[in-house]
Amino acid sequence: MADISTHDLALRLGLPLRGDPARLLTGASLLEEAGPSDVAFAGAPKFFPAAAASRAGCIIALADFEPAPGQSVIVSPQPRAHFAMALSILYPAPAAQAGIHTTALVDPSASIDPTAEIGPFVRIAAGARIGARVRLAEGCSIGASVSIGDDTVFYPRVTVYERVHIGARCIFHANAVIGADGFGFEMAAGAYRKVPQVGTVEIGDDVEIGAGTCIDRATLGVTVIGNGAKLDNMVHIAHNCRIGSHVVIAAQTGLAGGVSVGDYAVVGGQVGVGDKARIESRAIVGSGAGILTSKIVRAGEPVWGTPARPLRQYLAQLATLSRLSKKKH
Amino acid sequence: MADISTHDLALRLGLPLRGDPARLLTGASLLEEAGPSDVAFAGAPKFFPAAAASRAGCIIALADFEPAPGQSVIVSPQPRAHFAMALSILYPAPAAQAGIHTTALVDPSASIDPTAEIGPFVRIAAGARIGARVRLAEGCSIGASVSIGDDTVFYPRVTVYERVHIGARCIFHANAVIGADGFGFEMAAGAYRKVPQVGTVEIGDDVEIGAGTCIDRATLGVTVIGNGAKLDNMVHIAHNCRIGSHVVIAAQTGLAGGVSVGDYAVVGGQVGVGDKARIESRAIVGSGAGILTSKIVRAGEPVWGTPARPLRQYLAQLATLSRLSKKKH
Amino acid sequence: MADISTHDLALRLGLPLRGDPARLLTGASLLEEAGPSDVAFAGAPKFFPAAAASRAGCIIALADFEPAPGQSVIVSPQPRAHFAMALSILYPAPAAQAGIHTTALVDPSASIDPTAEIGPFVRIAAGARIGARVRLAEGCSIGASVSIGDDTVFYPRVTVYERVHIGARCIFHANAVIGADGFGFEMAAGAYRKVPQVGTVEIGDDVEIGAGTCIDRATLGVTVIGNGAKLDNMVHIAHNCRIGSHVVIAAQTGLAGGVSVGDYAVVGGQVGVGDKARIESRAIVGSGAGILTSKIVRAGEPVWGTPARPLRQYLAQLATLSRLSKKKH
Repeated sequence: MADISTHDLALRLGLPLRGDPARLLTGASLLEEAGPSDVAFAGAPKFFPAAAASRAGCIIALADFEPAPGQSVIVSPQPRAHFAMALSILYPAPAAQAGIHTTALVDPSASIDPTAEIGPFVRIAAGARIGARVRLAEGCSIGASVSIGDDTVFYPRVTVYERVHIGARCIFHANAVIGADGFGFEMAAGAYRKVPQVGTVEIGDDVEIGAGTCIDRATLGVTVIGNGAKLDNMVHIAHNCRIGSHVVIAAQTGLAGGVSVGDYAVVGGQVGVGDKARIESRAIVGSGAGILTSKIVRAGEPVWGTPARPLRQYLAQLATLSRLSKKKH
Repeated sequence: MADISTHDLALRLGLPLRGDPARLLTGASLLEEAGPSDVAFAGAPKFFPAAAASRAGCIIALADFEPAPGQSVIVSPQPRAHFAMALSILYPAPAAQAGIHTTALVDPSASIDPTAEIGPFVRIAAGARIGARVRLAEGCSIGASVSIGDDTVFYPRVTVYERVHIGARCIFHANAVIGADGFGFEMAAGAYRKVPQVGTVEIGDDVEIGAGTCIDRATLGVTVIGNGAKLDNMVHIAHNCRIGSHVVIAAQTGLAGGVSVGDYAVVGGQVGVGDKARIESRAIVGSGAGILTSKIVRAGEPVWGTPARPLRQYLAQLATLSRLSKKKH
Repeated sequence: MADISTHDLALRLGLPLRGDPARLLTGASLLEEAGPSDVAFAGAPKFFPAAAASRAGCIIALADFEPAPGQSVIVSPQPRAHFAMALSILYPAPAAQAGIHTTALVDPSASIDPTAEIGPFVRIAAGARIGARVRLAEGCSIGASVSIGDDTVFYPRVTVYERVHIGARCIFHANAVIGADGFGFEMAAGAYRKVPQVGTVEIGDDVEIGAGTCIDRATLGVTVIGNGAKLDNMVHIAHNCRIGSHVVIAAQTGLAGGVSVGDYAVVGGQVGVGDKARIESRAIVGSGAGILTSKIVRAGEPVWGTPARPLRQYLAQLATLSRLSKKKH
């Protein structure tokens, strides 16, 4: 944590301050749990009473908020967004502690930037390249010829199979697995024979990958995750998927082989997407939806249900079913 | 395993014994697979023929069971529950082997009870506190300022991020991830900006967490898992959820941010629960159900389907649909 | 990778070659991405134009394909299957590097074949038996009395709890967890009491297990995975399931306790299967389907939906619902 005065916080947010400029802030909290050295926020007028009743020393709030005596106010048209920025200021990501832990095993042919932090029990294979200020926590595995861009952070025990490329400023949570084999077999003489998965995975810049998420390598070619994409926990991305930039995918969603997702699409949790389906740019897929093989999901109206259909159509069908069922009984 | 005579087993179960009190039992088994030194059980009269045909040396059974010659019987009004207790007696959890493995890395500021067992390749960060008789198997990571209560057991490679509190007598299976960042972003200038997740996780006593299950830290405040809760494999608990005491959640279920689940609720497998939904105490959610954002699920009748509705209503709708579809064709 | 001439590749595939027999092939690729030293394939006449336009030095194609000048053709009645075989030839699995890494911890009572490769930070417990040419990548845990058959490969950080038996020529991807406790509790005096899970897991030969997949041990008896079964990423197999030979299960599917799946059945992704359901040999379950407790799914027609029903019936019901809903509006 980084302590900061109300004056300096307002300055860094580029916002006006009302009240005591010298109050020292040491944390951020919810209105109900905040103390005198915490900043909190009131994102809408309905939260003003709770904000005025809060013990928070500083509130980020809309201009018409009337603070309690002693409360400082940082005036913002978007309190929630500015509070998120305040969090980044008060709780900066820890800096890399340059160096390779004595228990780490680094192949002599790997290239490690001297500012990178390589944690205990890490293994880095031949030809890997690790950028500046990268942090690899304990137990990560970096396969042969993998590259990792500057300022990327790996939490414990991330596994990256060989030849995967990862961009800069990414965050990988614990147990993510990048580049495992795609699921491909050919039936021959009554048994499935493995189709070697010889492609790879490319992950852009500013990507965040949740705990336990698995992104499989391509059979041939590349599985792609675009810049700024955010994947939650336990997401499954099969071989040869192409995820655009700034795509959001919530937890436990699974994409089968060859699915493409356009830029800025939003996919809910526990969604299932069939082979080669195409989710177009800015499309929205509701949680739990099931998208059929080769289906195209367009932007404009969210889709929901299995098989996924436009939200209004699905809701109308649910209403029809409910009405008919009541009539019967 | 711990060998025990039929006499001593009956004594420890507080139940009457019929037959040979000196037979030595070395294991427990299914009726069909049991041998002369095994205990098995017959939970209902329909299993009596199989029990009498079993080679099991001892049967836990209802009073009216007629054993085969040579079989001992422990007479129980609840054979299944007493058999489970017999399992605990015959297969006691291994005791902690006090000490810190030479390959473990423990920060000097961490406090480790001398009776705790710290396995190989474990990393314990600054300020962590490990209770009495705790067992941490190989490759676990314990973040800064984490506390773990007495007699808790971690299987290999459990990851606990910083500042998480875990109670006593818990069991964490391999690859559980506790305290990874909640999934929170703000859109700004065409890109998602990470909202730092500065809250934490608190887990009560007697909790069991399945393999690969992920419990995210709160954005602000605390993600809570109550005493006695049991979570199966690959469950996803998002930031700021509050799970009550003695809640059961089956495998692959996912709870979005801010969901609350009341005491003694039972949630099936592969259930999806939307943001801020509330599952009340003793409610039952059928497997695969989808609960909408902010929905309240009450006790009294199980819910099922997506969107989740009372079971009878859902079944009536399915019957209506089936009937209308047949009429058409 | 293993370089090979067009002549030798055709010979190993047992297929006729047209064109230059001496061209050296160093890789395999998609038609659009291939270069002069790559082999690619054209699986149907509709791909012939792309194949003739490809820079690939060698095409595996049907007999009536007309290559561009300079292209070699390996003539096959099944180009896709033969291309998969070519991949195995060009990208052979790496051979085990016999030996035990200095950082590995192997119990003196374990039996390790001298040709096996035991990677860094591996732990092998008492009484385990590791077969010939087995490869255990970094960070794997092998529990007490586990046996692993010849030529099986473990990617990083696979966890095998005690007493599990694994066959020959299997592949386990990163973070698979085999033999964790089944999810079994008895309610007693207002709290769930753990039922010790004292059974085990047996996995046949030629099985592939995806990243993060969890196969729980039996309560009593054995959880079985048959020969040649292929499980994708993050599949959940509960206690006492019996999976037949050559079964395919796609990603994120979950089977509750005691489910049986017959030989050659195919189960899609994100399927949920209730306790003790039986999926018969060669049955097909569509992705996202939900199969009720104790349900029997027969071969002959795929099932889909929740609760799962024959595909035509489900599609008819969807069509009925759509028609009625339109009529209303």
